[in-house]
Amino acid sequence: MNILYIMFDQLRFDYLGCAGHPTLKTPHLDRLAARSIRFTNAYTQSPICGAARMSAYTGRYVSSHGAHWNGFPLRVGELTLGDHLRAGGVDCWLVGKTHMKADAKGMARLGLSPDSIIGARQADCGFDVWCRDDGLWAEGPAGRYDEKRSPYNEYLKQKGYAGDNPWADFANAGRDGDDIASGWFMRHADKPANIDEADSETPWLTTQAIEFMTATQGPWCAHVSYIKPHWPYIVPAPYNDMYGVDDIIPVNRDDRERDDPHPVHASFMNGRIGTTFSRDEVREKVIPVYMGLITQCDDQMGRLFRHLDETGQAEDTMIIVTSDHGDYLGDHWMGEKDLFHDPSVKVPLLVHDPRASADATRGTTSDALVEAIDVTATIIDAAGCEVPSHIVEGRSLMPYVNGVDHPAPRDYAISEYDYSSHGACQGLGVAPRDARLFMVATRDWKMIHCEGGFRPMLFDLRNDPRERIDLGADPAHADTRRRLYGMLHDWSLRMSQRVTVSDADIAARLARGGGTGVVLGIYDETEIDAALTARYRGKVPTAPGD
Amino acid sequence: MNILYIMFDQLRFDYLGCAGHPTLKTPHLDRLAARSIRFTNAYTQSPICGAARMSAYTGRYVSSHGAHWNGFPLRVGELTLGDHLRAGGVDCWLVGKTHMKADAKGMARLGLSPDSIIGARQADCGFDVWCRDDGLWAEGPAGRYDEKRSPYNEYLKQKGYAGDNPWADFANAGRDGDDIASGWFMRHADKPANIDEADSETPWLTTQAIEFMTATQGPWCAHVSYIKPHWPYIVPAPYNDMYGVDDIIPVNRDDRERDDPHPVHASFMNGRIGTTFSRDEVREKVIPVYMGLITQCDDQMGRLFRHLDETGQAEDTMIIVTSDHGDYLGDHWMGEKDLFHDPSVKVPLLVHDPRASADATRGTTSDALVEAIDVTATIIDAAGCEVPSHIVEGRSLMPYVNGVDHPAPRDYAISEYDYSSHGACQGLGVAPRDARLFMVATRDWKMIHCEGGFRPMLFDLRNDPRERIDLGADPAHADTRRRLYGMLHDWSLRMSQRVTVSDADIAARLARGGGTGVVLGIYDETEIDAALTARYRGKVPTAPGD
Repeated sequence: MNILYIMFDQLRFDYLGCAGHPTLKTPHLDRLAARSIRFTNAYTQSPICGAARMSAYTGRYVSSHGAHWNGFPLRVGELTLGDHLRAGGVDCWLVGKTHMKADAKGMARLGLSPDSIIGARQADCGFDVWCRDDGLWAEGPAGRYDEKRSPYNEYLKQKGYAGDNPWADFANAGRDGDDIASGWFMRHADKPANIDEADSETPWLTTQAIEFMTATQGPWCAHVSYIKPHWPYIVPAPYNDMYGVDDIIPVNRDDRERDDPHPVHASFMNGRIGTTFSRDEVREKVIPVYMGLITQCDDQMGRLFRHLDETGQAEDTMIIVTSDHGDYLGDHWMGEKDLFHDPSVKVPLLVHDPRASADATRGTTSDALVEAIDVTATIIDAAGCEVPSHIVEGRSLMPYVNGVDHPAPRDYAISEYDYSSHGACQGLGVAPRDARLFMVATRDWKMIHCEGGFRPMLFDLRNDPRERIDLGADPAHADTRRRLYGMLHDWSLRMSQRVTVSDADIAARLARGGGTGVVLGIYDETEIDAALTARYRGKVPTAPGD
Repeated sequence: MNILYIMFDQLRFDYLGCAGHPTLKTPHLDRLAARSIRFTNAYTQSPICGAARMSAYTGRYVSSHGAHWNGFPLRVGELTLGDHLRAGGVDCWLVGKTHMKADAKGMARLGLSPDSIIGARQADCGFDVWCRDDGLWAEGPAGRYDEKRSPYNEYLKQKGYAGDNPWADFANAGRDGDDIASGWFMRHADKPANIDEADSETPWLTTQAIEFMTATQGPWCAHVSYIKPHWPYIVPAPYNDMYGVDDIIPVNRDDRERDDPHPVHASFMNGRIGTTFSRDEVREKVIPVYMGLITQCDDQMGRLFRHLDETGQAEDTMIIVTSDHGDYLGDHWMGEKDLFHDPSVKVPLLVHDPRASADATRGTTSDALVEAIDVTATIIDAAGCEVPSHIVEGRSLMPYVNGVDHPAPRDYAISEYDYSSHGACQGLGVAPRDARLFMVATRDWKMIHCEGGFRPMLFDLRNDPRERIDLGADPAHADTRRRLYGMLHDWSLRMSQRVTVSDADIAARLARGGGTGVVLGIYDETEIDAALTARYRGKVPTAPGD
């Protein structure tokens, strides 16, 4: 069996037809959901691309792998999905985005060249690269956001789009007469991107995925990782005006959230992104385009699934669809991601297993508390490889997929955020190492602990499912906060770094027992089996001068 | 300046004349103490050789580096003292014991050969090896405890001691007529080891250290790491009968400790080592020999310090003396180490800085809460290298050495112990990953948190300095336990894995700001500086078909 591990970027958990969006059209993903189990309580490990993805690729919490933010290198030697799959004879390929930053210092220290197979896998987060495109080819006075080669830009140039950065000038811009109308400026969002739809990013990456599947023998896991619906919010026709203001779901915000906000929420709310997305004209311009980007993604899913059907690969291919995090889109007076309200921290998660063993759960949903790192364990498990529980902190969801009895993977979900690289850190006057937030969520409650001396945030998910009332300072809920802190503390003492020794290794050591001649606490030979101490009996050998 | 980083193995904090032992003779170390600052509240990071040493060599907590127990490999790529010193142009050499186990799997995965300089340093915990001797050449039916080459055994063979393991037959055995009287059996402890004193382990390693200093150009840090006074408890004449029963300090134990013991304490207390060391005949046989081993170590210190004086190196050599952990010697009904009573978890720590900057503190003591990982930071700092605070979790003690104003390094000390490889784990029916203990100590209190569902232990260090009354279940001290748990939880959320990015790196990123063309939350070009967005203005380049 092969595994398509499909990840979208910044796709909200509730922006799918199958997830209940009233106007958004995602028929192909809805059809997949009818043949999958859909998880409705799936949390990203961090509401920021880089950290979330390093967790997804290592199966470890952010504070376990240490790559807390975009562009923070994943330390050399950290084990990845690719290591665990290849150990079981399954290849692990990349088609698209990882946001991986190589630990160049660490590689140099260990003499690893990016030109070697070992070095290349270290530099690319354990993947073998069919096509890597991190999809953010922005340029400013300080240079490019991403200095890597852009295969997508090369494709566009070869197709005849002029200039050195057609990603910026065509794929992510409309036109205003003869002028570029850049998608970075949201007033242009509803303009059609100035590009043939077939040449835009999502169809291009889908073509890469189809070419990969055509050319590559299995068993493989392919991480098909799309850039969209991530900003810049702009999309080619017909998707640019497919949705209108009437198709937008009501904004979820409340004046009470601004009256006496938690300082951390306030610092993001009052930043440029928060204030911009709090303007209705911005939401009304951007959200229909965000929806168009999603429907374009869905149409490309249709193309991909059709290819699987037509080539007979469908019955032999597991399909997982998720996202790295969500998008506030103005909810809670926020834009982008950063904090832990559902629109930001929850992700869609579909698991389609073609095998008969999964028939019982097709079309069902589970509200189990799932974390992104569980997907890593699920892929390793589904591929028939061993999930090393001393390294991978996620838990396989295959018991859910197969509908068999099993203990819940956990009683609470954790997500983390290090905002030391965000302006809010300076704004709050917090030291970089204190700019860390930890979410603890049960089915009933969500608490956010803030390092740096701030009070926690607390939301009652049963009675305030829209998370509008922060009970973090409410004396009536001190016991609940204490209970959730207990969970956070249990988690924080987890064993996360004993990665060179498994529980099985320890059992084997104990079984071997004291047979290596170290006999402690023995006063007299007669106290233990002579066989154990034979080496310490007998005649004295010759000494110097004897 | 060069640095002699001297470590003894299993030397109790209170078994030095300068530390107040009434009968034990350590004149050379006492003289060093008169020229040093001595820390009276220094804690090992773990009361077990391997874990404690991996913390000493990385400057990181046990649960940060993950090598929890003897023989648990230190993960490849983990940074060590050697990495930090060499980055500053200072060599870092090993003369003696590390207890390092190479991460062979990790090295193979990264293609590192132990024959290469990089691979050899990975395999030897970051040291360049002058002489490595882990000093435990035991043998049993299951083979050798240590399969490495034994330079000490080679030395003894070349001197004419016959057999393939003269370490076992001579250096660590007496004779009983023509028979071997092995030091593993403590009834033989007081017999003189059947070896010329000059050929025994401690003098041999001292000779290695002197040869190193004679042959090697500085600046260097040399880890001179002795095996003794670690068991087997046996020593050559005249040290074997230098002390008698009257020289033993009173045992620190109390029947109340056995009446209603904490289950974890009970499991160790009732094990073979605990029960053996609870027999007075054992203590009276072993402790005088343990004291003799220490005086032999002290005489060798005299030899080493004389060499420094005679060669003029003394004024240019910093000397640090410590141990990896202590030895219960029957206190609290325990032998060996394993738990967190002072005799086990506290270590001696002398820091002698020959520079005038340290004159103010010579002969003084400090009762600051010091951890073994502080020594790592102190060495890096004293050598004039940068202490990378995002990697090294210890704090430099140089402000204490120089007697300048400074904040205390911490309000509480942490020590950890993973007993999953100890029989007590099975005895208690604890899962391997739950067999973990965490000590939190302030000047007034010491609490031990136990994973696996046990209550904590608690000792009132002011009113019960001998730690005989476990208040872990006393309702009167619930607030104290809550306060100490608060400290443990603060510690457990520390940032320990963001090792690829420093706070300075983050500051530089923020200073660079948004100059790379990613402009978020901008509705209209006019909202920001045109220079930042110039790349997104201007005429549309040629498109296909234009």
